[in-house]
Amino acid sequence: MRQGASPAQIQTVVDRVEELGFRAHLSQGEERTIIGIIGDERPVGIEPLELLEGVERVVPILQPFKLASRDFKPESTVVTLGKGKKGEVSIGGKAIVVMAGPCSIESREQLMETAWAVKESGARVLRGGAYKPRTSPYSFQGLGEKGLELLLEAGEIVGLPVITEVVSPSDVELVKRYSDCLQIGARNTQNFSLLQEIGRSGHPALLKRGMMMTIQELLMAAEYILSNRDYDVILCERGIRTFETATRFTLDINAVPVLKQLTHLPVIVDPTHSTGRAALVPPVSRAAIAAGADGLIVEVHPHPERALSDAPQQMKPEAFVVMMKELKAIAEAVGRTL
Amino acid sequence: MRQGASPAQIQTVVDRVEELGFRAHLSQGEERTIIGIIGDERPVGIEPLELLEGVERVVPILQPFKLASRDFKPESTVVTLGKGKKGEVSIGGKAIVVMAGPCSIESREQLMETAWAVKESGARVLRGGAYKPRTSPYSFQGLGEKGLELLLEAGEIVGLPVITEVVSPSDVELVKRYSDCLQIGARNTQNFSLLQEIGRSGHPALLKRGMMMTIQELLMAAEYILSNRDYDVILCERGIRTFETATRFTLDINAVPVLKQLTHLPVIVDPTHSTGRAALVPPVSRAAIAAGADGLIVEVHPHPERALSDAPQQMKPEAFVVMMKELKAIAEAVGRTL
Amino acid sequence: MRQGASPAQIQTVVDRVEELGFRAHLSQGEERTIIGIIGDERPVGIEPLELLEGVERVVPILQPFKLASRDFKPESTVVTLGKGKKGEVSIGGKAIVVMAGPCSIESREQLMETAWAVKESGARVLRGGAYKPRTSPYSFQGLGEKGLELLLEAGEIVGLPVITEVVSPSDVELVKRYSDCLQIGARNTQNFSLLQEIGRSGHPALLKRGMMMTIQELLMAAEYILSNRDYDVILCERGIRTFETATRFTLDINAVPVLKQLTHLPVIVDPTHSTGRAALVPPVSRAAIAAGADGLIVEVHPHPERALSDAPQQMKPEAFVVMMKELKAIAEAVGRTL
Amino acid sequence: MRQGASPAQIQTVVDRVEELGFRAHLSQGEERTIIGIIGDERPVGIEPLELLEGVERVVPILQPFKLASRDFKPESTVVTLGKGKKGEVSIGGKAIVVMAGPCSIESREQLMETAWAVKESGARVLRGGAYKPRTSPYSFQGLGEKGLELLLEAGEIVGLPVITEVVSPSDVELVKRYSDCLQIGARNTQNFSLLQEIGRSGHPALLKRGMMMTIQELLMAAEYILSNRDYDVILCERGIRTFETATRFTLDINAVPVLKQLTHLPVIVDPTHSTGRAALVPPVSRAAIAAGADGLIVEVHPHPERALSDAPQQMKPEAFVVMMKELKAIAEAVGRTL
Repeated sequence: MRQGASPAQIQTVVDRVEELGFRAHLSQGEERTIIGIIGDERPVGIEPLELLEGVERVVPILQPFKLASRDFKPESTVVTLGKGKKGEVSIGGKAIVVMAGPCSIESREQLMETAWAVKESGARVLRGGAYKPRTSPYSFQGLGEKGLELLLEAGEIVGLPVITEVVSPSDVELVKRYSDCLQIGARNTQNFSLLQEIGRSGHPALLKRGMMMTIQELLMAAEYILSNRDYDVILCERGIRTFETATRFTLDINAVPVLKQLTHLPVIVDPTHSTGRAALVPPVSRAAIAAGADGLIVEVHPHPERALSDAPQQMKPEAFVVMMKELKAIAEAVGRTL
Repeated sequence: MRQGASPAQIQTVVDRVEELGFRAHLSQGEERTIIGIIGDERPVGIEPLELLEGVERVVPILQPFKLASRDFKPESTVVTLGKGKKGEVSIGGKAIVVMAGPCSIESREQLMETAWAVKESGARVLRGGAYKPRTSPYSFQGLGEKGLELLLEAGEIVGLPVITEVVSPSDVELVKRYSDCLQIGARNTQNFSLLQEIGRSGHPALLKRGMMMTIQELLMAAEYILSNRDYDVILCERGIRTFETATRFTLDINAVPVLKQLTHLPVIVDPTHSTGRAALVPPVSRAAIAAGADGLIVEVHPHPERALSDAPQQMKPEAFVVMMKELKAIAEAVGRTL
Repeated sequence: MRQGASPAQIQTVVDRVEELGFRAHLSQGEERTIIGIIGDERPVGIEPLELLEGVERVVPILQPFKLASRDFKPESTVVTLGKGKKGEVSIGGKAIVVMAGPCSIESREQLMETAWAVKESGARVLRGGAYKPRTSPYSFQGLGEKGLELLLEAGEIVGLPVITEVVSPSDVELVKRYSDCLQIGARNTQNFSLLQEIGRSGHPALLKRGMMMTIQELLMAAEYILSNRDYDVILCERGIRTFETATRFTLDINAVPVLKQLTHLPVIVDPTHSTGRAALVPPVSRAAIAAGADGLIVEVHPHPERALSDAPQQMKPEAFVVMMKELKAIAEAVGRTL
Repeated sequence: MRQGASPAQIQTVVDRVEELGFRAHLSQGEERTIIGIIGDERPVGIEPLELLEGVERVVPILQPFKLASRDFKPESTVVTLGKGKKGEVSIGGKAIVVMAGPCSIESREQLMETAWAVKESGARVLRGGAYKPRTSPYSFQGLGEKGLELLLEAGEIVGLPVITEVVSPSDVELVKRYSDCLQIGARNTQNFSLLQEIGRSGHPALLKRGMMMTIQELLMAAEYILSNRDYDVILCERGIRTFETATRFTLDINAVPVLKQLTHLPVIVDPTHSTGRAALVPPVSRAAIAAGADGLIVEVHPHPERALSDAPQQMKPEAFVVMMKELKAIAEAVGRTL
């Protein structure tokens, strides 16, 4: 719609779109309103909409993903976590944002020790797992709601927004109450029931790429969330499965600039799962920022050797401090801040 | 336990196992009872259990999967679908079982036409999708409960047990009411909430291998179901994702004998998704039976060119008839029946 | 060309093709002659050739491979090894052909023992490596020319044609003198200097698919050989590299029917390298025949535990006998012989 | 050997090593001499060598690669190209080295235009293909020796060392005469005849990782070269083949720090083949330097739209200038120069 299009004009277009048998998705920006016309097939007969009052342009989006596409929304989306709270942070703008914390929340002590350490080193979001999707049913599955309580408390004490994973549609409301961002893990990126429920929740979300998922499929999964709500979805490259066994997964660094071209959503990188080895986290984190990522999500644990899950890949706080200094230099070299 | 061990003896062992801090999983066969001792770590201090009355042997299972392991249960499991109903069928025995039907249930006519066709050609189970996990939110998502009703009705009319996919933990009870077997699709094989809910349902299940899942991870996913219930789980190889693009996926035929070695559960093959092209379904189906598979699950559609999903990979009934005859010859060549 | 086209008519077409700036590839069958018109780009301006006398049809081949394409030569090619010698054998006809022998030729005793064993079990070609492309420079590299002498001798004594690998363009003439078929191993399938040299040799060749090679690339590699000579090239699927680590490689069973559709060349399968484990060789060999393969190439060693290379994947002669009986039943089930 | 060990002491150790049935590989550094003891199996009975005069330590190298291992030679190797010539350059030291030039040498004009452009932008080595390993026999195969002459001339005029690919063992001597570094392409990295011939040539070499080669296999391939000569071998990550099709290959950025840990050899990255799209070259080049690469090899063409090979992936000189400035900033951020 043109700048300054009236609500009535907008409504007229929406009504007409629906008459034509499509679904309308309203996106009200500060300057103008965009109406997404959504249908399974190539939208036939929509060109005449351009004749309606207040309409600026009708743009067909040929990619199978629509709302996530940069063709649809050219300006980059900035996602705000912890809106209005102490520590509010924006992802997708000039500042690189690092999220850090333990793989699993194990105890109040472990979490608080990590929270203070990462905050002091410059992390802007606290991460921690309460529901762990473990390959084996006999492995530690996380503290559940008790873990959520600890996470919320820790975030409030140190003044950082918190992010944690949700693994079941029925947990979405609960996890939303305790966290500032809902994380969808790599094993659930095509769990469409979960994606839809998170879409309906209207809460900011971080969608990890599945280990077997193409870039296009990742954007289609984002579309499942977006088609039910607003744009505050962050994408995360976390390594794909390949034949190479020297590292746990293969970080697809190409995916960072490819995603930045294709979508307006912020893109971050998980160097921890991408490599599976703490010693490799600093070099690939530097690479991620240099390639244009908007942030990182990193596992840090005060005593990795005692961790209840994924011990070899969690960094010590001391190593994290050093890495953050290196990342600052890289951020500045690409014209950003940290 | 020894043959003829008394309920009291069994209870004593169970009590002792739990005293030692482990979980006991009771499996009562016709000849003997097996007590699984489940713990995250290597079970320390269980050897003395062998001294208890009625105990035959204590066998440590070193594989990360326990209940699914052939070390734990050497004899092959036979899963019965539609127990007590017309068309009851056993999978994992001498007879090869072919499940067939459309990708999606689209209408009563389409389903009935297919059901009669596959039944006449020798299929023993009717498949059909009511909830479709589609990559795009804008694609046809299935008829939902209406589809389940049509499926149940079709199964009753033609006299075949029915199988259909369940995609959300909250749908498990519903789908259980309408079907004889719960199918877990390739995008949900590490959706642990769903696996656990299906485990608790106690209903027969068919677990597809994820497209980027190792054989060991498949067995661990089966363990999620088994650790909550009895053994009636069927595994299904359905093609893995590789660099080859001539076919939709790459059927991992090696997985069939590897699985038959590692697990007692029945193993079937999905030639339709493994190839993505109807013309390739007969040769790879023959290969699957020759390699030792216990059955197949095949997509058949009376008018593939009009199908609402996955058109190029669905076979016509006429091609299915021809294939079934070829498969009969292969089954006999490996000492089985069809 | 039409049946009965005269040599002069053929020459006229060839001349005209070359005038137009293309290369002509003559293929004289028993019934008719085919003239391949080869150029980098889509051959422009060739349609008028149809007006020349004796020309039946001008068929554009849109696939990037031309001479290997079934569009170009619809009838299946039958490759004869050991032409005119005792044990002459044809591959690509009704009879399934099994090639067998040790991974490496280690000694006269080892080779003769294996040769008699496989011959008695029904193998029709003797294989054995004299030049071994080993990943490590410190591993046994084969006996070289001494191995070739032993192989030739063994073939003559037991009455079987022999096949062995050639790894360097400069060895082609030497290996041709000692063997009935030149094998190109998986690490050399895009060693274009070697392919061209083998093409020029005019000797029958067996081209293995590289572990990282698409089906289309395999056909392009075959094209390198064919564009320098006649059609006696056999293709071999030997497993591709994937993320799965339970087996050494993943046999791409889909490739068998895909290749049979795309090309007229015979297609065989190497179950030994595809799996890396002797126990898996029988089931995947059965699968290969059931899927339509024209033959197999199998490693057999009288004492695998003492083998100088690839010990765990070589079958014992006793297991080979049993497998050959099973394969006979499968061959008959698909209307072929063994 | 200890610092200051005499030639006689060294000879005594070498003799003893050979008496024990191993091969000795002498590596004379400025400070001390290292004697590699090479054998297929774990070297038994070598510990007593420590008692010989002049011997400092006997260190078993457990990795399957020995001479390439950082355990064997802890200090990083610096490879010098164009030794003693104008434009001599060292790779593996503090300075990042960028090699650039066209995919194929097409003409004197095209090559000179590119050579001046990349030299002015700060590239230190000129690359250009004269022998092209093309997938199709019908594609442009390079100018051959004529191309080598043009390359040598261009290098001399602009004052840059030159690098070009060699594809056949019989071409090694020829290509050595015209170039300062022998490049082994991704399709030939397990062409062991070629590797050995290049080893024997004693000329500096750049070894690309195969598209389906593990990191360990790359180091074993390097070992084939090193076991025949000195240490001047550069490794190059150029993208691996995965399921992702949005880019031509997937740059394995993890491989950079993993290789720097495992080996003392310099490691560079080929951003052009890793992505297959010119627009992605700058971000992944920045990532490579940030991750610790010692250099890059980049395709630049004055008129990519007219290139005879790989058109979409070659950068224009104008884009290359911009990228080099960005890379300078990244190099400084990681404490290096460009």
